[in-house]
Amino acid sequence: MTAPFPTLDSFRAVLAAQPAPDATAGAAAAARNGQLTKPPGSLGRLEDLAIWLAGWQSRERPQASAPQVVIFAGNHGIAARGVSAFPPEVTVQMVANFRHGGAAINQLCRAYGASMTVHALDLDRPTADFTASPAMTEAEVIAALTTGWNAVDPKAHLLVTGEMGIGNTTSAAAIAAALLGGAPEDWVGRGTGVDDHGLARKAEAVRTGLATHAAALSDPLQVLRCLGGREIAAMAGAIARARSERIAVVLDGFICCAAALVLERAQPGALDHCLAGHISAEAGHGRLLDALGKQPLLNLGLRLGEGSGAALALGVVQGAVACHSGMATFAEAGVSGA
Amino acid sequence: MTAPFPTLDSFRAVLAAQPAPDATAGAAAAARNGQLTKPPGSLGRLEDLAIWLAGWQSRERPQASAPQVVIFAGNHGIAARGVSAFPPEVTVQMVANFRHGGAAINQLCRAYGASMTVHALDLDRPTADFTASPAMTEAEVIAALTTGWNAVDPKAHLLVTGEMGIGNTTSAAAIAAALLGGAPEDWVGRGTGVDDHGLARKAEAVRTGLATHAAALSDPLQVLRCLGGREIAAMAGAIARARSERIAVVLDGFICCAAALVLERAQPGALDHCLAGHISAEAGHGRLLDALGKQPLLNLGLRLGEGSGAALALGVVQGAVACHSGMATFAEAGVSGA
Repeated sequence: MTAPFPTLDSFRAVLAAQPAPDATAGAAAAARNGQLTKPPGSLGRLEDLAIWLAGWQSRERPQASAPQVVIFAGNHGIAARGVSAFPPEVTVQMVANFRHGGAAINQLCRAYGASMTVHALDLDRPTADFTASPAMTEAEVIAALTTGWNAVDPKAHLLVTGEMGIGNTTSAAAIAAALLGGAPEDWVGRGTGVDDHGLARKAEAVRTGLATHAAALSDPLQVLRCLGGREIAAMAGAIARARSERIAVVLDGFICCAAALVLERAQPGALDHCLAGHISAEAGHGRLLDALGKQPLLNLGLRLGEGSGAALALGVVQGAVACHSGMATFAEAGVSGA
Repeated sequence: MTAPFPTLDSFRAVLAAQPAPDATAGAAAAARNGQLTKPPGSLGRLEDLAIWLAGWQSRERPQASAPQVVIFAGNHGIAARGVSAFPPEVTVQMVANFRHGGAAINQLCRAYGASMTVHALDLDRPTADFTASPAMTEAEVIAALTTGWNAVDPKAHLLVTGEMGIGNTTSAAAIAAALLGGAPEDWVGRGTGVDDHGLARKAEAVRTGLATHAAALSDPLQVLRCLGGREIAAMAGAIARARSERIAVVLDGFICCAAALVLERAQPGALDHCLAGHISAEAGHGRLLDALGKQPLLNLGLRLGEGSGAALALGVVQGAVACHSGMATFAEAGVSGA
């Protein structure tokens, strides 16, 4: 299928008409949880996770054995401004690494039984340098959103969206600053490892970008178009498509969450099907998660992207689902209650 | 094999003669880590974990696909003092549940490919009520340590020690208070869910136990004998055996860490092969981890025991090992460096 949104306004309409979770299945899962052979509440967040997932999957016993990881790669005009520790050609090199199975995300997908697809978005045509002009035309951002939308397997039990794109923490910082306010310095971080000069260049790029596009920043989808990147738009498209299929999403780090933020600001509640997989070491990620109202599952100092933190969290979700769906009840096991 | 310690003094001698990690393998793993296709440090704690494990396993690329979970169950005389929300017969009922595959730990073992064995330690003979007399004789504590020692599979890639024993958070609190000081109230918690009266009874039991055995508390192994339980001693025996085989251990919650604390106080450095799988919701666990100098991998509000939090952490360790052992190097993948 192609995506049902030829324009940004029609994408906005799609976001406004998304489904809710199945309250009946959620209630059934909560009732089951109360009968399992453990003291009430003793599995902590694992219990909430399984019940939440049951609602989205419309199953009393949710499943997590077949997650999907989709990786989007894009190149950024802003990279020419010295905002990354790595040269722009690394984007295409890492896409090859993904395809040959050599990256971190490949190993994590294998560890947790996730399928993985890689989508390289016009790598030979970087987005425009957003300090001078909009990163993308409307046609370009729609094309990227559509790539994301179509990348999702409707049969997946869970979705992780990952990214690769030299320069994209600067783009994500610009989006966060545009939608949440604050100084550029609040949102830029070390990314792949820039020094203090690089960090200052990132803040300056964000500052200039916000000034250049000031007239457009009241519309979150225009923020995505003017300051984003193809892989960021594709993640937004995939997260939206997952909602339309009632597939729960595990959010990754700063860049993934910047894409998600666009959806939440365009349509409050658009991320009700999303959980935060981890909090990364990128400076602005914690503040971004706070703005999204999401508490991360993991806090292990990752800052790689590729969907790696979210993929790692898949292992935890699988543990939660295994307990909820597989445990005996007090009655089945003949165990005395409290 | 039987355990090489017929007395507590010979167990002490075993602890004093344990092996260290392989510094050469650790250095090789660190060198490999620096060549993998990711910005330096971008996998955060996963990198440290893999390198640490490489040292213990004497392999540049560590393995985690065959972890072992050993569960020990014991009954406690102290349970008669109303310190648990559940009746004492639940211990034997839960052992049956473990054997039939219905408990949380069974599901987690299946999720992460861990083998699991269950050891019921004289459930028809609870330990003595430690407020009145030592919980165990020297022969009893040696027998329990030996059960733990012999439960470990020398071929396991990692070990998790779990427990079941109605009343055992009170025993663990008494051990912690004896070895670390502080008021009984600092160490008792809700366990399986006691109310305020139960919590007060727990503190009172700890206070009385400390007074009764005051003369013995300068020796950590006597603390274990006087205030512990068979499953707690068995966990200590298993953790010590793992060290003798250079198998890394993932520590579970409050009770497991109380067992580990006995070893650390008997022989500083005895837990160098251990990592903290999680911080539980049991009140004293965070303080206990601080005393052990261990930073937990997970913080998800679990408070079940059974090794469940540590088993959940196995999923994270497997992700760390998968990345370290499976990723391509910059040279292999033809990716440009920073």
